[in-house]
Amino acid sequence: MTRLVTYSTGNGARLGSVRDGMILDLALAADHQRFENTGWTKDSLAFLEAGDEACEQLRALTASIKALGDDAARKAGLLVAEADVQVLPPIQKPPKILCVGRNYGKHAAEAGRPISEIPIIFSRFAKTLVEQGGNVVVPTVSEQLDWEGELAVIIGKAGRHVRRADAMDYVAGYSIFNDVTVRDYQFRITQYTAGKNFSRSGPFGPYLVLTDEVADPHNLDIKTRLNGEIVQDGNTEEMLFDIPAIIEHLSEFIELEPGDVIPMGTPAGVGFTRTPPRFLRSGDIISVEVEGLGTLTNPVINEADA
Amino acid sequence: MTRLVTYSTGNGARLGSVRDGMILDLALAADHQRFENTGWTKDSLAFLEAGDEACEQLRALTASIKALGDDAARKAGLLVAEADVQVLPPIQKPPKILCVGRNYGKHAAEAGRPISEIPIIFSRFAKTLVEQGGNVVVPTVSEQLDWEGELAVIIGKAGRHVRRADAMDYVAGYSIFNDVTVRDYQFRITQYTAGKNFSRSGPFGPYLVLTDEVADPHNLDIKTRLNGEIVQDGNTEEMLFDIPAIIEHLSEFIELEPGDVIPMGTPAGVGFTRTPPRFLRSGDIISVEVEGLGTLTNPVINEADA
Repeated sequence: MTRLVTYSTGNGARLGSVRDGMILDLALAADHQRFENTGWTKDSLAFLEAGDEACEQLRALTASIKALGDDAARKAGLLVAEADVQVLPPIQKPPKILCVGRNYGKHAAEAGRPISEIPIIFSRFAKTLVEQGGNVVVPTVSEQLDWEGELAVIIGKAGRHVRRADAMDYVAGYSIFNDVTVRDYQFRITQYTAGKNFSRSGPFGPYLVLTDEVADPHNLDIKTRLNGEIVQDGNTEEMLFDIPAIIEHLSEFIELEPGDVIPMGTPAGVGFTRTPPRFLRSGDIISVEVEGLGTLTNPVINEADA
Repeated sequence: MTRLVTYSTGNGARLGSVRDGMILDLALAADHQRFENTGWTKDSLAFLEAGDEACEQLRALTASIKALGDDAARKAGLLVAEADVQVLPPIQKPPKILCVGRNYGKHAAEAGRPISEIPIIFSRFAKTLVEQGGNVVVPTVSEQLDWEGELAVIIGKAGRHVRRADAMDYVAGYSIFNDVTVRDYQFRITQYTAGKNFSRSGPFGPYLVLTDEVADPHNLDIKTRLNGEIVQDGNTEEMLFDIPAIIEHLSEFIELEPGDVIPMGTPAGVGFTRTPPRFLRSGDIISVEVEGLGTLTNPVINEADA
């Protein structure tokens, strides 16, 4: 029962756990309860790098705060309302963001592209990440800004040549990604780098939901809404390469690290394949809901107003 | 007259300046000379982020150490022989590594590929970087490990929508990159991500040579040697997109940051285009020399021995 949130109250980034709209400040709570070796409370990357030990400490800490009681925790300044903070990306500087392309059959079909026998991997830079509620920006150089709601897998353990059977042991949790894409830049040359790395094009969050809260990551509804209207309505069971297949593939060439983020591809319903095509415009609100992981919502503005 | 080196004497990474085979430990030197605000001596990224002020402090510091004299500096423990340290990548975790593909006409021709009207950009993860003298690894899954000697541009200033005329102001310095590539993984699908991101495939260094030492980055000889034999012999004047053109293009979509690394593409002479093809094998020594920037040398071993 654990969802972590990275947030700011104006004083730099904090790591918290979320329950019923309230955030427990983990560093303050660990200090208050006189826990030792609390480096894992510093941020989500430190938490992930500390591995199983941090998970155990987190469970012990939340149990001890529960025993203390909400009133006492509030009086001690350990709790803050989620509504009163600025939520930040669940990992602010992931070591790697490894995106999977064309991983849903109906999306490949709507894009008029073949299904690939080998996973299509492209990368994003951390600089493109956008926090919950933060603006997504229509660039001056293109009008073809398109949405892609996705499940994001968060790696919790370093590994190379991970076998399919062991792959899920390397997953620490899940989040939501909106792999917002500038289509003309994506398709005018073979490499997706530019089209997938415009400034403020990577909404990510709001939570890092640990695996104990997700019974089956291969059966989660994904719904993307544009100004409230459902534009993507899929389920992760449709993924062509499942999570173990992707982990096996990635770790064939590079070592996975705690904090790596893997956006798993988007279901059908993006904007550029519609007749007429539909793109994000200033004033739009784009949101992605993944079952059990929350909703990631972002307004759209023009670069001139950013 | 400044070349910086990131190195280890066994006690974590240090930042130094190099002259005549000797390294000046900048943090110790700044402390010894009672300089204030010496955060820029922490590492190369801190140096680059501190901008012009750090450059001025560095000049003042090296001048004051010169006045002190080499003997006194050595006695004070501020100098160490380059031969006695482990050189590390000049930036260990660049915010971005933005590689330029097919940027030399003769290389495009040897690969049988057209010249692109738009720069071809792909990315590398910091995890792939290899230090001077460190092993490059032939993976178990492929025998097609190929060399690509390149000039690397190091960004010193944040910027978006940088115009061609201003672009060189954003360059802090230069280094050497060997964009070692697993060819079958590069070409079996459109995205280069896997082929360009194998573990220990990105030799980078040995120095960060600041712009004051490079009269014209668009006229530097590049020579790649395989076991001493010259296999690539080009000059940066052959680049199809010059440094300002690439900076203009990249900053069209993403904000450049201090510490970003831009490997500028490779001249003709790679291995896979030869008859018969030639690839890196365990026991080989691959080195890249760029005029005025030093030589980046790496042995090759098999993954089984890594």
